[in-house]
Amino acid sequence: MPAPILPGPILPTPSLTAVLGLLDLIGVGVFALSGALLAARLRQTLVTMTFFALITGVGGGSVRDLLIGAPVFWVRDPLVAPVCLGVALVVWVTPSRWWAASNYDWPMLDWADAVGLGAYAVLGTAKALAYGVAPVPAMLMGVITGCVGGVIRDVLAGRPSILMRPELYVTAAALSSLLCAAGKTLGLPNALVWPVAALGGFALRGAAI
Amino acid sequence: MPAPILPGPILPTPSLTAVLGLLDLIGVGVFALSGALLAARLRQTLVTMTFFALITGVGGGSVRDLLIGAPVFWVRDPLVAPVCLGVALVVWVTPSRWWAASNYDWPMLDWADAVGLGAYAVLGTAKALAYGVAPVPAMLMGVITGCVGGVIRDVLAGRPSILMRPELYVTAAALSSLLCAAGKTLGLPNALVWPVAALGGFALRGAAI
Amino acid sequence: MPAPILPGPILPTPSLTAVLGLLDLIGVGVFALSGALLAARLRQTLVTMTFFALITGVGGGSVRDLLIGAPVFWVRDPLVAPVCLGVALVVWVTPSRWWAASNYDWPMLDWADAVGLGAYAVLGTAKALAYGVAPVPAMLMGVITGCVGGVIRDVLAGRPSILMRPELYVTAAALSSLLCAAGKTLGLPNALVWPVAALGGFALRGAAI
Repeated sequence: MPAPILPGPILPTPSLTAVLGLLDLIGVGVFALSGALLAARLRQTLVTMTFFALITGVGGGSVRDLLIGAPVFWVRDPLVAPVCLGVALVVWVTPSRWWAASNYDWPMLDWADAVGLGAYAVLGTAKALAYGVAPVPAMLMGVITGCVGGVIRDVLAGRPSILMRPELYVTAAALSSLLCAAGKTLGLPNALVWPVAALGGFALRGAAI
Repeated sequence: MPAPILPGPILPTPSLTAVLGLLDLIGVGVFALSGALLAARLRQTLVTMTFFALITGVGGGSVRDLLIGAPVFWVRDPLVAPVCLGVALVVWVTPSRWWAASNYDWPMLDWADAVGLGAYAVLGTAKALAYGVAPVPAMLMGVITGCVGGVIRDVLAGRPSILMRPELYVTAAALSSLLCAAGKTLGLPNALVWPVAALGGFALRGAAI
Repeated sequence: MPAPILPGPILPTPSLTAVLGLLDLIGVGVFALSGALLAARLRQTLVTMTFFALITGVGGGSVRDLLIGAPVFWVRDPLVAPVCLGVALVVWVTPSRWWAASNYDWPMLDWADAVGLGAYAVLGTAKALAYGVAPVPAMLMGVITGCVGGVIRDVLAGRPSILMRPELYVTAAALSSLLCAAGKTLGLPNALVWPVAALGGFALRGAAI
């Protein structure tokens, strides 16, 4: 059989797909939380809050999947919608003082965003690598998909993008992506590399909060 | 024949495709009108007005098609470009008092947006269902594609996104999408479900204007 | 062999692909420069600057490739990442007075944007034509992909989009796209059409700066 002319994706194995799917769900959940909290802070309705949760939750992963040519992960997934709806409902029914130190200080929003940043930076890199993308572009993919959820959330809300704050943000995503790509290149097991890489970015971002 | 490994789209029938194409064209037209009116209000040139008409008109449908893995509907369509250009031209040659109550009050902009919202929420849901997406994600697809045209238009113009107004917007799109998915699940005919669903969302949005 | 049911892309020849790839790299470079300069003006860190360079550099081409159904050009390309990183590094290590007339006046940012606008308008049109898109939609594709890099850059930075300035911007992209599509329709050689079309849009935009 002749070799294909166009470079096709090297499809990941089913077990890797399952792990990536689970991590995607966690990333969706924490980003959805940050979106719902921003909507709560803006005193929006439950439906708008759900919309913010959904868009922020799936934004990064959707852009990643479109760029690497994978089917968009959440469109045929039975769990993503309930997760986003559930997160929005929880934020809606709980008093805002559980989430906010004051009307102007919502630390949980930043922390959820930080967890999502680390998780998606690793996920973006790992999924791109699994689809046969070279390490350096895969790392960039991780940075983009880690940052894009928060950017979309902020643009939708009409507030200055989180990138513009005088803090480490892109750098934290870059650290997670770099650790993930480096671990893969060195042949270390994913079960070790992924948590360390995600924690690295999260810690750096957390230090900046 | 063995089952396919990856879940492929269940391609819609040619007649359904034709109906969806016609509805897409209507959605494009009204969203294009809202984009052209915003550009007129901002006293932009004809070319920028056409650009706003195009981007607002095709934005929602493009995002929908990318997410469900369909070819982007307008790229190979011979009618979308003339429709957007025509809408921009009509707005350009007609006096702005036809469209605006005053310099600061452009009710037609909101009404065109409301029609587009209802039409695209139904279209997004229906096309996603036709591609084999499950009802709940298909509904979310309807909400996203109904809202995204207006969001892109507002972000391009640098004004606060329509989502941020203290009015029902996402809720109206959610109503249309819900009615569309419910009708499909109950097996009702599209010729009944689609107009009712679109009108429902439009009426709810209209009441908020 | 039966005709295919769905309209598939007419894949460009390898030599045309090579030329398009080279032009893409130039477009990436100049748009990356405009992104890096905006980040420099906002006194961002090196990593954020690289992120801006990357997103602005690849934004237009990514949207174009997604819309026409081509694999996203930079994901499997070994040169785009080094180009963006290199551009950001050069801007980082050089004194800002090389690039800026004053703190509030960065003419190089607008000039790099103008070169990118012309180059990407032609590239967008040419690549869409090469994939079998009809001339008018191909022209619209050129306009969109020429403008979208700068729009994404400005939205990320939270400043009013360049479209909103009272200057010729979309019109310049439209001129380049029109010349490119017209040249192709008349059967003129690409080696003549592409430079003329890119220069036409650049000159019109330059006159407005």
